[in-house]
Amino acid sequence: MRAVCLLSGGLDSSTALAWARAEGYDCATLAFDYGQRHRRELESAAAISRHFGAAEHRVIAFDLRAFGGSSLTSDAPVPQSGVDPAMIPNTYVPARNTIFLSFALAYAEVRDAQAIVLGINALDYSGYPDCRPEYLEAMRRVAALGTKQGVEGKAPELLAPLIQLGKADIVRLGTQLGVPWEQTWSCYLGGAQACGLCDSCRLRLKGFAEAGLRDPLQYATTPARP
Amino acid sequence: MRAVCLLSGGLDSSTALAWARAEGYDCATLAFDYGQRHRRELESAAAISRHFGAAEHRVIAFDLRAFGGSSLTSDAPVPQSGVDPAMIPNTYVPARNTIFLSFALAYAEVRDAQAIVLGINALDYSGYPDCRPEYLEAMRRVAALGTKQGVEGKAPELLAPLIQLGKADIVRLGTQLGVPWEQTWSCYLGGAQACGLCDSCRLRLKGFAEAGLRDPLQYATTPARP
Repeated sequence: MRAVCLLSGGLDSSTALAWARAEGYDCATLAFDYGQRHRRELESAAAISRHFGAAEHRVIAFDLRAFGGSSLTSDAPVPQSGVDPAMIPNTYVPARNTIFLSFALAYAEVRDAQAIVLGINALDYSGYPDCRPEYLEAMRRVAALGTKQGVEGKAPELLAPLIQLGKADIVRLGTQLGVPWEQTWSCYLGGAQACGLCDSCRLRLKGFAEAGLRDPLQYATTPARP
Repeated sequence: MRAVCLLSGGLDSSTALAWARAEGYDCATLAFDYGQRHRRELESAAAISRHFGAAEHRVIAFDLRAFGGSSLTSDAPVPQSGVDPAMIPNTYVPARNTIFLSFALAYAEVRDAQAIVLGINALDYSGYPDCRPEYLEAMRRVAALGTKQGVEGKAPELLAPLIQLGKADIVRLGTQLGVPWEQTWSCYLGGAQACGLCDSCRLRLKGFAEAGLRDPLQYATTPARP
């Protein structure tokens, strides 16, 4: 079985890749150099891909700074005051997962892959609309109707093994599957140490704390609350 | 009313843009430098965008040759022996319209646009799965569920004004709306003259012939049948 695995090099996508390998998939990994604030996550993605013996690792480059609309693709400051699950934060990048999945559909078709694996989760998350199960269901229709694979009745499955897991469960699963956490990167900023205060650091730290496990990354600051 | 218009510089997308302008939309045009066989269509897109007074014209670059899987994004020969509507030809580019529409969703969100306009049509077409009405319906669900605009109840409409028109009707409509045909480019190859034999040339020539209108482009060859 062949899969295309979206891989940002963070906690979730690294665990999703580990899951796919444990399930026996021959994985090609796909990362995006889209104008994000730093390249550190791209280095992590390449390292994690190698760690799990992916058959191929591709990086597709395009510049979402042409549109902006997010603190990750413009000079707007990344919020560091805490996660508010009731609103969409400015780290939301317009249509990002749709863009990523559309390239994954192209890659899956060329690889004749049976599955696309992605690490989205809708419990301890940042309120992004394109991480919800109903969104994923809509993309499954697109895979079935908009691709040659779909027309031939072999649209790739879109597998989101973490979608109903909280961060602590993801940390437990990733640890069990041997994710080398020290090689991953979650912080939205690209400093020498993880900032500890952005939503992504807070959710990660909360996950490790609740799982009772130690995050080997060094943090510039550790928040009093997640 | 603001719209994002996908514009390749060919017959269909130029007519769709003309339609959007005639409907009163303030249009931003979006083209893609995706590793296609030639840049001539990009020059046409920019010229057509200017002709119709678009507010902005953006070109997003990425390399689909990383995946290949199409004669438009690899060195496989483009077929020139005639259109067979019963099969998907090798000019089909995996997931291309999904990739294009996903970037359009991002652009629409940043522009706060009410509509995305595209020139797909499902009558005299090349058999691409991502030109069919049911595919477009699936993308509407994605727009509604996967974007901030959608969550806020103002997902952009996906408008495909040509979807039920034959090529002759498109030629008539474009002529009536003042599309400068001599500035458009449809040929899959990028020669000094249009080849006249690829599916795109054949469909275009058939449209002009059936509409009883003259195509001002010069063709290297004119096929005996479409």
